[in-house]
Amino acid sequence: LLSKHLPKQTDRLPIYMGEVGPVWLYPQSQLDCVVADPKKGSKMYGLKSYIEYQITPNSTNRPVNHRYKHFDWLYERLTEKFGCALPIPSLPDKQVTGRFEDEFIKMRMERLQAWMSRMCRHPVVSNSDVFQLFLTYKDEKDWKEGKRKAEKDETAGVMIFSYMDPEVPDLEPTEVEQRYETYSRFTRSMDDGVKDLHSVSHLHWKRCTGPLQKEYRHIGKALQNLSSVFNTSGYQGEATLTEALMTTGKIYEEIAEIVAGQPKKDLHYLMETNNEYKGLLGCFPDIIGVQKAAIEKVKDADRLVAMNKIAPQDKHNMAKNLSTMSYAFQAEMNHFHSNRIYDYNRVMQFYLQEQVKFYETVSKLGLSIYLLTLQM
Amino acid sequence: LLSKHLPKQTDRLPIYMGEVGPVWLYPQSQLDCVVADPKKGSKMYGLKSYIEYQITPNSTNRPVNHRYKHFDWLYERLTEKFGCALPIPSLPDKQVTGRFEDEFIKMRMERLQAWMSRMCRHPVVSNSDVFQLFLTYKDEKDWKEGKRKAEKDETAGVMIFSYMDPEVPDLEPTEVEQRYETYSRFTRSMDDGVKDLHSVSHLHWKRCTGPLQKEYRHIGKALQNLSSVFNTSGYQGEATLTEALMTTGKIYEEIAEIVAGQPKKDLHYLMETNNEYKGLLGCFPDIIGVQKAAIEKVKDADRLVAMNKIAPQDKHNMAKNLSTMSYAFQAEMNHFHSNRIYDYNRVMQFYLQEQVKFYETVSKLGLSIYLLTLQM
Repeated sequence: LLSKHLPKQTDRLPIYMGEVGPVWLYPQSQLDCVVADPKKGSKMYGLKSYIEYQITPNSTNRPVNHRYKHFDWLYERLTEKFGCALPIPSLPDKQVTGRFEDEFIKMRMERLQAWMSRMCRHPVVSNSDVFQLFLTYKDEKDWKEGKRKAEKDETAGVMIFSYMDPEVPDLEPTEVEQRYETYSRFTRSMDDGVKDLHSVSHLHWKRCTGPLQKEYRHIGKALQNLSSVFNTSGYQGEATLTEALMTTGKIYEEIAEIVAGQPKKDLHYLMETNNEYKGLLGCFPDIIGVQKAAIEKVKDADRLVAMNKIAPQDKHNMAKNLSTMSYAFQAEMNHFHSNRIYDYNRVMQFYLQEQVKFYETVSKLGLSIYLLTLQM
Repeated sequence: LLSKHLPKQTDRLPIYMGEVGPVWLYPQSQLDCVVADPKKGSKMYGLKSYIEYQITPNSTNRPVNHRYKHFDWLYERLTEKFGCALPIPSLPDKQVTGRFEDEFIKMRMERLQAWMSRMCRHPVVSNSDVFQLFLTYKDEKDWKEGKRKAEKDETAGVMIFSYMDPEVPDLEPTEVEQRYETYSRFTRSMDDGVKDLHSVSHLHWKRCTGPLQKEYRHIGKALQNLSSVFNTSGYQGEATLTEALMTTGKIYEEIAEIVAGQPKKDLHYLMETNNEYKGLLGCFPDIIGVQKAAIEKVKDADRLVAMNKIAPQDKHNMAKNLSTMSYAFQAEMNHFHSNRIYDYNRVMQFYLQEQVKFYETVSKLGLSIYLLTLQM
């Protein structure tokens, strides 16, 4: 209990009882960073070229540069160190280069930004030496030394739990199992739900930018063509009709572009968020597996004590460790939930806003004006 | 010239010079009829059953009954008698029965109504004995006698032109050819235009009632499912989010139904009109062929006169006949144009009105309300 008042050791990971249950220790000011300014660099006298991004943390306000492979290195370190307890989502895909290089770089930067912001928001990750090194190294020497040190860090797998200090009473294994069941069910259902929404969004995107755009354009062209044909009749008194046909045709061409441009405005953000959550949720089976194994082990401990294969104290320690692991899981789930609510709130706000704009825009394209003209 | 003041002989077909050029003689009051009340009838002690429609002309206000095969009989008579000069569009398809019998009968009735109204609007057709018989026969005996008489009518093919009285100066063959070129080009272009609009409308209809409806439903379900999953989190403070997800999901299901129901509201009428015009325009190649043959014949007449194969008077008569044929064509084209403008004006008005309604309806579904809730 004393430790609470001692100066914080950076490698201890306290867990407190918050309003929503066990929570990580959150820093007073939220770390964040800006990923920007992708620049082409080269090495080996121009033989090898790469893209370097500038990352500026709000803690130092001093930019550092990193290539994609440095992000990848960071991802590997974080996964090794925290992967048993925290979901560390994959980076955006490595492959894919080619023709749309600028667009690709922009997209990758956007996704690296999202990934970094998510890592910054995580109190355990953001406070780790390796993450701090990545964001705040002073010079090449500092980076190289820090890298070497991080690569020597032997904290891997379940060892991370030994750093955790839940400042709360131990949990009974049955309580642990209950939490485990709840979280396991939730993350699996959410994974299914997110994947389903993602796949239908993808389909809808393809339809809007493919056949639907083509069809609206075609309707537009067909109406304009009919207008042109009617204009050649030499018959009097059809100026209103041909004008209405022509303008409606043009409005349809506008609708085609609006419909095709819409997914980039609304679905894009929803799909990016869903994609991030797909990544996060994809990490849970491993985390859940670790919990499950520990639960089974403790369940088996009674038998082992009876067979004299382990001492009662060993069993007690195992239950204590399980309790710690469960607290870590609970703290992580509470972190996950609060972020999830924040993220989906924002994305739904944004999505609805763009949808409302869409229907209003089309409503206001002037179809009604030509309707009035025809009725005169 | 005297004939103008003589009592009108019903079988003469005068052509006058109107404001827009040569025109048929239009009746003072426009004939129209209502096709309604389809009833199942049977024959041969119930062995054969059929649908009988009630047709009530505005001239007598007395309903008569006809089966589809009577319409078909009328179509055959009109085609034989007028087909070389006037486009007599085909009846709605004969085949197709089956499961949706009620819907099929309704659709056929709608199309028979459109066909009858179009025929009623035609001054030459509507004034003919056979058409009048169809609409106003008094009893079975009257109908049978009239039928027999109509079937004996030997006016067929180009003979119809001999009944025509253009009360205008004869046209030079070069002028005839000019008109011919103009009309031929116009009807062909319009045929292409109408077919193109029809086929893209058909595609769009299928998309709205098929994959698009399915996709909107799927998005709706996926959002509602995510809302349900979120509700099981046990985490506090997400009521606003889950409610917004749920309601947006439901709104998407509404959009699915609105999108799928829209074609029946707007495209339907546009497609029916286009279909009628496809039918009308399909008759022009024959009419144009008759004109073309007559033009060639008159062109050849000079040579035949020189070879003494025909007398100069014969050539003169041929040119006069050609002039009459051309006037008939012009009168018919003027009739066609004025109907076309009327029909497309109406259909565009209706179409735009429904489109405006559609976007307004979706705008007002309440997406914006949930947007405000989320922003609070």
